[in-house]
Amino acid sequence: MSPTIWLESLITDTPQEGFELAITLSRRGVKSTQPDVDTLKKLRPDYANNADSLTAASQVIAINFQTVAAANNYWK
Amino acid sequence: MSPTIWLESLITDTPQEGFELAITLSRRGVKSTQPDVDTLKKLRPDYANNADSLTAASQVIAINFQTVAAANNYWK
Amino acid sequence: MSPTIWLESLITDTPQEGFELAITLSRRGVKSTQPDVDTLKKLRPDYANNADSLTAASQVIAINFQTVAAANNYWK
Amino acid sequence: MSPTIWLESLITDTPQEGFELAITLSRRGVKSTQPDVDTLKKLRPDYANNADSLTAASQVIAINFQTVAAANNYWK
Amino acid sequence: MSPTIWLESLITDTPQEGFELAITLSRRGVKSTQPDVDTLKKLRPDYANNADSLTAASQVIAINFQTVAAANNYWK
Amino acid sequence: MSPTIWLESLITDTPQEGFELAITLSRRGVKSTQPDVDTLKKLRPDYANNADSLTAASQVIAINFQTVAAANNYWK
Repeated sequence: MSPTIWLESLITDTPQEGFELAITLSRRGVKSTQPDVDTLKKLRPDYANNADSLTAASQVIAINFQTVAAANNYWK
Repeated sequence: MSPTIWLESLITDTPQEGFELAITLSRRGVKSTQPDVDTLKKLRPDYANNADSLTAASQVIAINFQTVAAANNYWK
Repeated sequence: MSPTIWLESLITDTPQEGFELAITLSRRGVKSTQPDVDTLKKLRPDYANNADSLTAASQVIAINFQTVAAANNYWK
Repeated sequence: MSPTIWLESLITDTPQEGFELAITLSRRGVKSTQPDVDTLKKLRPDYANNADSLTAASQVIAINFQTVAAANNYWK
Repeated sequence: MSPTIWLESLITDTPQEGFELAITLSRRGVKSTQPDVDTLKKLRPDYANNADSLTAASQVIAINFQTVAAANNYWK
Repeated sequence: MSPTIWLESLITDTPQEGFELAITLSRRGVKSTQPDVDTLKKLRPDYANNADSLTAASQVIAINFQTVAAANNYWK
């Protein structure tokens, strides 16, 4: 979408940084469909206060974390 | 569906290009079920302004990104 | 269900043919639950004009594409 | 649940038999939660005539097919 | 939650026992969020008589079965 | 979000501790989207008393358990 580099590598120093990267990837997936930041802000209360929406968000992070963890050979 | 080649390879130069390819694959999955571009355009406001729909879209991208990342051996 | 052979191999020549096979597998999964073609046709407008249904369909294709891509060693 | 053996092996002769096994696994997953066959029959029209339910059923088959396909080394 | 040991190993003698373990893991996931057994019993009719809920339950089992099957090298 | 270290390693001594870690990862995924603990507490009855929400929560745990189990080579 934008030529800005936001993802240089899947490698992180620690599992926790890997989890943060998984969160970033999940948000980027949302942004790729709705790039307008104002719209995203307006939608925030819809899902941040809904239990099922939060579970769904956690699921996307879990899927992306699988990728990041495998990339880092599970930080072993 | 169409004989046009749109997917020559799963290999990309960078993780970010891999993420873009995952977005393309996700959109192609939609298009394979609804090939009519006008219908897709009409549906856009339905999901681009709905938090749960955006999370669901991000999830499909995450699944496709798993495939692309594995194909590229995680760009290691 | 039917003794007709419809899946001889997971190996395809190109990634794009692999994606087409993933679409076929997804449709077969639907057909295994609802084999009646007329009913399936009647249901088509329900999901082909619904953004969330299209995302869900794309997700099943993405999961099947993971399988097909792994089977083909990512066409490397 | 029942001591009857219904799953002796994940190995199948062909990919198509593997897909059939994935369907069986998906149904067994349902049965483990609702073992009453009469109830399951009564519920059938609910999902067999609903596009989103059919997509969801296809998704479970796709996940189980990943397992069966890996078990068979993709029938290579 | 409880210090009771309920998961000693992912290794099972047969695929079918592995599937039973996947069911156990799925139920434990539910219990970790709602540990009250009486509440769980009260909720049972809600999902045991709903086709989409049963499909969703089968999906969680399928995901856990992937894990158990890989742990057992697919009982090969 | 917070600089506190909460995830030092994906390695656990036992499968059961691995399952507990999967629960932690799932909750962290929720917290990353809604960090306010009071809001999360208020939402609790919404999902802890809803069968489908509990199944969805169990699914996220299952996905994270795949990651943790692979990291530990399935505790073999």
